[in-house]
Amino acid sequence: MKNYTSIKDIDNINTWIQEAIKIKQNPLYNKELGKNKTLGLLFFNSSLRTRLSTQKAALNLGMDPIVMNVSGDAWGIEFGDGTIMDGNTAEHIKEAAAVVSQYCDIIAVRAFPSLTDKEKDESEHVLKSFVEFASVPIISMESATGHPLQGLTDAITIFENSTKKKPKVVLSWAPHIKALPHAVANSFVQAMQKMDVEFVITNPEGYNLNSEITKKTTIYHNQKEAFKDADFIYTKNWSSYDDYGKVLSRDDNWIITKEKLGNAKFMHCLPVRRNVVVEDVVLDSESSLVIEQANNRTYAAQLVLKKILEDNK
Amino acid sequence: MKNYTSIKDIDNINTWIQEAIKIKQNPLYNKELGKNKTLGLLFFNSSLRTRLSTQKAALNLGMDPIVMNVSGDAWGIEFGDGTIMDGNTAEHIKEAAAVVSQYCDIIAVRAFPSLTDKEKDESEHVLKSFVEFASVPIISMESATGHPLQGLTDAITIFENSTKKKPKVVLSWAPHIKALPHAVANSFVQAMQKMDVEFVITNPEGYNLNSEITKKTTIYHNQKEAFKDADFIYTKNWSSYDDYGKVLSRDDNWIITKEKLGNAKFMHCLPVRRNVVVEDVVLDSESSLVIEQANNRTYAAQLVLKKILEDNK
Amino acid sequence: MKNYTSIKDIDNINTWIQEAIKIKQNPLYNKELGKNKTLGLLFFNSSLRTRLSTQKAALNLGMDPIVMNVSGDAWGIEFGDGTIMDGNTAEHIKEAAAVVSQYCDIIAVRAFPSLTDKEKDESEHVLKSFVEFASVPIISMESATGHPLQGLTDAITIFENSTKKKPKVVLSWAPHIKALPHAVANSFVQAMQKMDVEFVITNPEGYNLNSEITKKTTIYHNQKEAFKDADFIYTKNWSSYDDYGKVLSRDDNWIITKEKLGNAKFMHCLPVRRNVVVEDVVLDSESSLVIEQANNRTYAAQLVLKKILEDNK
Repeated sequence: MKNYTSIKDIDNINTWIQEAIKIKQNPLYNKELGKNKTLGLLFFNSSLRTRLSTQKAALNLGMDPIVMNVSGDAWGIEFGDGTIMDGNTAEHIKEAAAVVSQYCDIIAVRAFPSLTDKEKDESEHVLKSFVEFASVPIISMESATGHPLQGLTDAITIFENSTKKKPKVVLSWAPHIKALPHAVANSFVQAMQKMDVEFVITNPEGYNLNSEITKKTTIYHNQKEAFKDADFIYTKNWSSYDDYGKVLSRDDNWIITKEKLGNAKFMHCLPVRRNVVVEDVVLDSESSLVIEQANNRTYAAQLVLKKILEDNK
Repeated sequence: MKNYTSIKDIDNINTWIQEAIKIKQNPLYNKELGKNKTLGLLFFNSSLRTRLSTQKAALNLGMDPIVMNVSGDAWGIEFGDGTIMDGNTAEHIKEAAAVVSQYCDIIAVRAFPSLTDKEKDESEHVLKSFVEFASVPIISMESATGHPLQGLTDAITIFENSTKKKPKVVLSWAPHIKALPHAVANSFVQAMQKMDVEFVITNPEGYNLNSEITKKTTIYHNQKEAFKDADFIYTKNWSSYDDYGKVLSRDDNWIITKEKLGNAKFMHCLPVRRNVVVEDVVLDSESSLVIEQANNRTYAAQLVLKKILEDNK
Repeated sequence: MKNYTSIKDIDNINTWIQEAIKIKQNPLYNKELGKNKTLGLLFFNSSLRTRLSTQKAALNLGMDPIVMNVSGDAWGIEFGDGTIMDGNTAEHIKEAAAVVSQYCDIIAVRAFPSLTDKEKDESEHVLKSFVEFASVPIISMESATGHPLQGLTDAITIFENSTKKKPKVVLSWAPHIKALPHAVANSFVQAMQKMDVEFVITNPEGYNLNSEITKKTTIYHNQKEAFKDADFIYTKNWSSYDDYGKVLSRDDNWIITKEKLGNAKFMHCLPVRRNVVVEDVVLDSESSLVIEQANNRTYAAQLVLKKILEDNK
């Protein structure tokens, strides 16, 4: 594996999960692997879990993390081809990516979508530009359309907490006050499609995700019906995909309650708005896996870094 | 000791001072103690000395520091209980503290007071929330009502520079253009109350600190009287406590001059506004201990980290 | 060498280049030299290459880099002597520099010019204040009038890519939309004056650099004439020096084209505005050395750090 930019880069999710669990049991086992190697973490957007867990993962492998908030610390980056750069951007991605490759052995990038220009977002111009113009491996720390470190984390967490051979996993849309990206939901869908689970999605009409990603996965517009016999309920808001980036309605009826959860485990990538997306009582219960998901972010990142370090020696 | 959030956490200030001085003489002696452990430094507010000295202390112990400016780098944090989070905050402290605990072995937090809501500030809701919801030890890097790393530093510096068995130490209010917190003054008072010194406070009327902290310590409203035979004059501005957070008057007569200082040593936590709080000639003289205070910040932090690492193995 | 703040600090550029190339061949050879030493990187301004390459250089020497964006992370710094600090600045450089010296074994500083107050900029008040008030060595990461790490990098890159005993090197002004500093151009001029090269400058009338720096170096106002038989064309915009800080005209005719470049190598310190300063086709061609220049930033910084560490043991 050269880059890790999508759940599609996982060749066998079951062996990946096994390896991640081995890392979790002994996180410092490969402390020599990344010695004298630097991981550059470039943030075009805010980050808490990803920022800390990816650094922690790098440190566990003996790497030196170097963090940069691109917008605040450096210059506006231009991604257009052939642009006459007489506006607000002062450095082209062609140079920026090639230059950072001189100092970092692996580059991890976070760049959210605009949610206004569907075509541009779907082109993944930021992430793809790094892949194209950097000379070192690229890891997505969430891009316009995917969050593959989160998706891998979620697969690990479901495996660890499953008591059945083939659990039922539901991805449920939830209300929110702002227009949010589809990245987490997309990567979760793709991860579940690779696992041996019964997987369905539920969301209000108008909120179907990109059908090229959901493929044959069943989508219910009736949340109650979807939740029947669920073992895991993964909740996440996203803005409309068809009416791109729009908040069609807040639909407070879709909030996750203790009653709706039943015996299922509750999952969310965080940050989560309490009592908007989900009730306090759910998050504060033993049924919530959100902190363990955050914990597994370290091991997902460490697995990806380990694979890249081993494959690019 | 699990957490270090107040001068009250110091069980015996004399043995602490002795141990800090031993660390200062050989700062790398415990380089193995913090190996493979991370210190998360979370800043809700600006910091220079604390930011650098706490990192340096962690490095001296072999720890890996991870720094985050919470507001700029991540999300708005909600501290309210039961809040419907449909406003500006995107992540609750319950999750934030628990999540950061997954990546950091110790969490250090800086969070200044509002100076507008006395009750809220005195509840120490930020610091206390971290203590409550984190699963790892918490260190205060200055909270609403205390700055215990500074107070410990000041105790060390006074001990080192004292030529008497029981020196006279004066805490003097000084003028300033902005409303400043009471944290440094409070922790200094508490530290001096634990030491074998003659300690008095002097401030204009209306500027008395919280009487639950000053207790029986004598407060002079006449600066000259207080300064008589002083060995150490610790200067600091604070806003009114009674008329909470207000600047009652600039009172330029309270500025520290060479004449007022006499043979005493001058102390200040920094940053200090020259020629507002104190005259240039004082700061630039041999009587000023401010740079040595800054130096001792490293050893105060290192002592606290060492104790926590040893007690939480 | 105590400090590195100017190309003038290079005693013998040829032996420096040789040593930098040895470091480049084996960057980890001196990994023990900087052990347990910290490098403080203080940024008053944005930075990409300098930020990352200087950290990488420090890591290669086993140092621990500590990065701070002074404006965002800490307090407004006062540089005036005798100022009554009742305005926007909260900490004086006298304290700030002395304090940071307590935590860092070497301090590297970036501070751009105002481009409005020529006298103040030329006094190098920020950099010189650090040199005066810090108790540890100071490295310039670009100051008001010079960028000596870049100048050293450029000398190394020209040496490495030269096929002649005495190549012809041209520094050419290029158009830009904003008023830019003279620092990179100044340090490049000073570096070339120390090397065994045929060196000329070309810029429009009104854009001559400080004559105390250019000295006897020939300045052409006719770019074509200057470019004749050039082996290296180093391009950079700068604002007027005589009409200080002004953009006199955009002069788009001065853009670097493939035709103008001919057989010469193209150099630029980056960031560069494509199709404003230089055409895409030049940057994307094999004749461009800009990425290799960025690579050499690490070894220039590492050489400087190594010399300072060795001389200040």
